[in-house]
Amino acid sequence: MVTASKDITHLLSEEARSRRPSPLKTAFKYFGNPDIVFLGGGLPLSDYFPWNKVTAHSPAVPFSKGIGAVPVTEEDALVIDLHKKKEFLENADDIELSRALQYGYTEGQHELMKFLKEHTELIHKLPYEDWGCVATIGNTQAWDAVLRTFCDKGDTILVEEFTFSSALETANALGITQFPVPMDESGILPDKLEHLLDNWVGKKPKLLYIIPTGQNPTGSCLSVERRKAIYKVAQKHDFVIIEDEPYYFLQMETYTQDVAAREGKHVHSHEEFINALVTSFLHLDTEGRVIRLDSFSKVLAPGTRFGWIVAQNNILERFVRLHEVTIQCPSGFTQSIINGTLQRWGQSGYLDWLIGLRAEYTHKRDVAIDAVYKNFPLDVIKFTPPVAGMFFTISFDASKHPDFETKYGKDPLKVEEALYESGLQGGCLMIPGSWFKAVGQTEPPQPVEETDPESANWIFFRGTYAAVPLDKLQKGLENFGASAKKEYGL
Amino acid sequence: MVTASKDITHLLSEEARSRRPSPLKTAFKYFGNPDIVFLGGGLPLSDYFPWNKVTAHSPAVPFSKGIGAVPVTEEDALVIDLHKKKEFLENADDIELSRALQYGYTEGQHELMKFLKEHTELIHKLPYEDWGCVATIGNTQAWDAVLRTFCDKGDTILVEEFTFSSALETANALGITQFPVPMDESGILPDKLEHLLDNWVGKKPKLLYIIPTGQNPTGSCLSVERRKAIYKVAQKHDFVIIEDEPYYFLQMETYTQDVAAREGKHVHSHEEFINALVTSFLHLDTEGRVIRLDSFSKVLAPGTRFGWIVAQNNILERFVRLHEVTIQCPSGFTQSIINGTLQRWGQSGYLDWLIGLRAEYTHKRDVAIDAVYKNFPLDVIKFTPPVAGMFFTISFDASKHPDFETKYGKDPLKVEEALYESGLQGGCLMIPGSWFKAVGQTEPPQPVEETDPESANWIFFRGTYAAVPLDKLQKGLENFGASAKKEYGL
Repeated sequence: MVTASKDITHLLSEEARSRRPSPLKTAFKYFGNPDIVFLGGGLPLSDYFPWNKVTAHSPAVPFSKGIGAVPVTEEDALVIDLHKKKEFLENADDIELSRALQYGYTEGQHELMKFLKEHTELIHKLPYEDWGCVATIGNTQAWDAVLRTFCDKGDTILVEEFTFSSALETANALGITQFPVPMDESGILPDKLEHLLDNWVGKKPKLLYIIPTGQNPTGSCLSVERRKAIYKVAQKHDFVIIEDEPYYFLQMETYTQDVAAREGKHVHSHEEFINALVTSFLHLDTEGRVIRLDSFSKVLAPGTRFGWIVAQNNILERFVRLHEVTIQCPSGFTQSIINGTLQRWGQSGYLDWLIGLRAEYTHKRDVAIDAVYKNFPLDVIKFTPPVAGMFFTISFDASKHPDFETKYGKDPLKVEEALYESGLQGGCLMIPGSWFKAVGQTEPPQPVEETDPESANWIFFRGTYAAVPLDKLQKGLENFGASAKKEYGL
Repeated sequence: MVTASKDITHLLSEEARSRRPSPLKTAFKYFGNPDIVFLGGGLPLSDYFPWNKVTAHSPAVPFSKGIGAVPVTEEDALVIDLHKKKEFLENADDIELSRALQYGYTEGQHELMKFLKEHTELIHKLPYEDWGCVATIGNTQAWDAVLRTFCDKGDTILVEEFTFSSALETANALGITQFPVPMDESGILPDKLEHLLDNWVGKKPKLLYIIPTGQNPTGSCLSVERRKAIYKVAQKHDFVIIEDEPYYFLQMETYTQDVAAREGKHVHSHEEFINALVTSFLHLDTEGRVIRLDSFSKVLAPGTRFGWIVAQNNILERFVRLHEVTIQCPSGFTQSIINGTLQRWGQSGYLDWLIGLRAEYTHKRDVAIDAVYKNFPLDVIKFTPPVAGMFFTISFDASKHPDFETKYGKDPLKVEEALYESGLQGGCLMIPGSWFKAVGQTEPPQPVEETDPESANWIFFRGTYAAVPLDKLQKGLENFGASAKKEYGL
């Protein structure tokens, strides 16, 4: 059953509440009125925009040679002409440069936002009606906008115990405290979250920041059961869930060491692909208390600086008011080129692209995990082959290091540092897990999780299989594995 | 004599002071090191960026048929091929898409920023050494970044008595109070500014926000003498000058009603052009207490969403830290295309473009002012033909309205409203000046300027000659003039 969203405006920040509509807006209703010469706005004439046409060269659906192949034949290649003037456009859904490069359209250009709303519906099938999408310039900016829209200085937010350190830094500088929610290798623990909030002292957190799929840094993927349980806690304790999902479409087949069995596991049809995707918080959101941050950074390119927020319309309006006085909107070149590409691919072709991406990342992940099995000291490590994202983590039992009790005084972080340095010496850099640890608030005193003495001695490293070609990936993991073995005297 | 900048970090906001460098940055020094396989960053491979080439079609130097002409011959047209891979680039200073569309480069792409720094030096000839440029996504975003970098909630800033209302709204929502500095038809009055600050009660303002050239909404251009005097007040009272200068290159020849004399007034050489530009605050800034917000919105196109901040390096570093956790950087398409265009035009060709723009705006301004002379009730108005920007203002003596003392109870704002409405009825929209009035703070009590009883009865309207073709411009001003005459019973 499709419902309407709940009013969550009581959770808005002072900044978001105090935004007033500009008086100039009342005049802009006459813009384009044929009976009135509009001398109201400082818009330059598009005659003086020095680009008459931009042509983008893309691979064509169905990407039969793989999404990484350079198109060589006419069938492989798509030539997208984007003209300044509307009358020259070759496609009714293209965005002419005279509009793309003009002021306005803070929400994002209509054609592109319509495509993205349809895509969002196709994938997430939202259970309430009054939702929409607003353009951002990527999830980093969107997260800053979320904090400004919901939090005042001194507020506390909930974050995963290990999380994207840049996101923490955004909150830090705004004077917003982070409270880390305990995790295991499958993500945050709903019962711990509930216990925490049941016993909360002082003003409750207004939001939970979470990277549910291909988590950064752990590489974990939160199960549907946990998502459901967390959503219930959000309802009980009235907070908003911010799902930061840049890696959502980097979901992969489950890892198997049996090379022969791998080929049979690939998804092929669009239906198979969509069904294989993990259920999003958005899909569980009957009340409009989930805000999803989506981005093209990992599926098309980071430098597009284009993303979008999915949320209930009433909240999106506050983001539009914020964007009007800050970013205005994403680049017109970006919007016109992405839109031109996606309109030609169609919803179906875009799914083909994402299926191609899934195959590429599955293969890269397989190569990385094979190399871990082959090169790492298996007796002192544990790891879970990731099913989503760009990252994998290898945990080491610091207490098994020969110098743990002597040279390192039983301090696991000293072992972490030694492994990092010896990895560098050996020719491979992976990031120490402690660099991602959220530091919690202490005032007023919140319930603190007792540390399991056994798990306290485990440290981990984050690696990526995304950024380097396969031969380098294998070489790097061979190096790191060898260095770690040496460290452990193995 | 070239000096070094003064330390102004004591003026930074709590937010700007509290930004910490990310620990991940320490690892990034190994990125690109041939001896180390870098598995540290979540960067997607550029093989999967779905654009192999973007081609931009621009007009070619020297724009012999005017900057608004559509290139038709090969000599008029510039075809700029921007390839994904560096080895295919046709120009050593182009930015390949694999880099433009990747993460990184928060300061802006090197080639483009180098061009802009050279351009800035050519135009402004800064008197101190340690300055630079950092990319923004336009002055609206840059202004928000300035406020976050210098102001805390509850701070007061100085603004022009009439100013860009969206800039005020940005400050409002951040809880920053604005104190209006009195203006006349030539901009803010340095002696009033000094008097204000000499008698200031409580925490002093950290910055003055000013649009010195082609001011919005008044269209005025601040004289060099006033700029020098204001800079001295800034030194005396230790505040930063934010010069928001989107219209700087829309400087025009002085208006003359003598049509025959117009042609001879045009600038031709680059030297003539540069010498004719009004001296910027940047050029007077021996200490590094000017922050200039520059933008391509009015000289190339608003939808590029590209601008840059010029300031001392020590302060720019704080903007880079802010951008890392918010916007990251402008769109890679935008940077690659603008850079490709400017590198081919060269510094000299870019000046040709700006000279062309000057001629276009001079002509549009002339047509507008001619139409005002022809159609408006000259006995009840006053106006100064603008020498810069997109706007002109027409002031009306409200006390001469036949209903001023009766129907409107001596309230000039009621006459303003009546003129606005009758203009709309007559088929032309111009914006009432009162919509741009900054509302000052009252707590703690600051010296309030006594209103000159004669000037208190003057109201004004802002129009633009930028946004509409010439025939519509003439028609609109004919309509507004006729409506105003009717209102005044003339």
